[in-house]
Amino acid sequence: MEARLRQPASQTETGSDPTTTRSEGVVIGVDPSLRGTGYGLVARRGSDLHVLAYGTVRCPRTWSRTECLAAISRTLRQLVETHHPTVAVFEGLFHARNVRTALIMGEARGAALSVLAEAGIEIYEIAPRRVKLAVTGHGGADKPAVARMVRRLLNLNQTLRSDEADALALALTHWQTHARPWTGTSKRI
Amino acid sequence: MEARLRQPASQTETGSDPTTTRSEGVVIGVDPSLRGTGYGLVARRGSDLHVLAYGTVRCPRTWSRTECLAAISRTLRQLVETHHPTVAVFEGLFHARNVRTALIMGEARGAALSVLAEAGIEIYEIAPRRVKLAVTGHGGADKPAVARMVRRLLNLNQTLRSDEADALALALTHWQTHARPWTGTSKRI
Repeated sequence: MEARLRQPASQTETGSDPTTTRSEGVVIGVDPSLRGTGYGLVARRGSDLHVLAYGTVRCPRTWSRTECLAAISRTLRQLVETHHPTVAVFEGLFHARNVRTALIMGEARGAALSVLAEAGIEIYEIAPRRVKLAVTGHGGADKPAVARMVRRLLNLNQTLRSDEADALALALTHWQTHARPWTGTSKRI
Repeated sequence: MEARLRQPASQTETGSDPTTTRSEGVVIGVDPSLRGTGYGLVARRGSDLHVLAYGTVRCPRTWSRTECLAAISRTLRQLVETHHPTVAVFEGLFHARNVRTALIMGEARGAALSVLAEAGIEIYEIAPRRVKLAVTGHGGADKPAVARMVRRLLNLNQTLRSDEADALALALTHWQTHARPWTGTSKRI
């Protein structure tokens, strides 16, 4: 898990653990954006949560919008084929500064959501405040605090990029609230 | 071309012509929206433009957002496999009432764009006003006027849904302006 592998073909940075057998289920958290889509796959085995892979689909400024969307789809399809997630979690009720930004964010989300939906994966949204609350105990926690708690709760030694931490936090929140559906934390979309 | 085939599996309404051989190239116009994504494929043979297929990916209100996105991706992938378009055209600079609407529209566009980009198809945007101007000679033309001219220019006898007419108009505009690149009508994205 600690080894970071660079895969130049898809400009993807990845941390991964090949021992994916006998988990009770695999959840993928996704934090989509055009230039840096974070993802994190977390499995539960017994009472333990275990990180299978995390990383960022990095799309340099020199890439066109559609090249980025293709990279997001391609990477998520590869992750689905490798790790067989059954549940995906995205941020809900997030903010966009304006219509133009919302459109670009929407396109990145659409590229990711359509791959997971075509694979028959259940997709949920969780509000950012709920994620912060579940992970840090404080709904107004800042990004570094979320990243620190994600590393601690998932026993990761490496520093995490903000989009990776957010994606892992989404998967973690799903598992943490999984046994308490009455909290109404997530919404299937 | 005049026969309309209903394909219940994907809730797609389609008009198609199986004689797709020996075209100089195939252009797909796409007018994405969550509940009714229009598409139209137009080939040029010699000086003639020829409609290969057009239709709407219809997603009933009972379908979830992600089921709709999967249907958009699946349908476009099938069209790519059947008709091998080399160029795709979308509307650019379109309006959204608010951030929420832009996000939903963006998701539908992302689902469509990522499939076409993964297939290596060149993707262009054309401003709606340019499309109206190219098809009707008037940049402020209304939707019925655009649909009438699309039917006339492409020799279609059947009435067209608004999203189908818009998609065919995009493909038509690409061909009409193809020989005049100095007009700067379309922008590769």
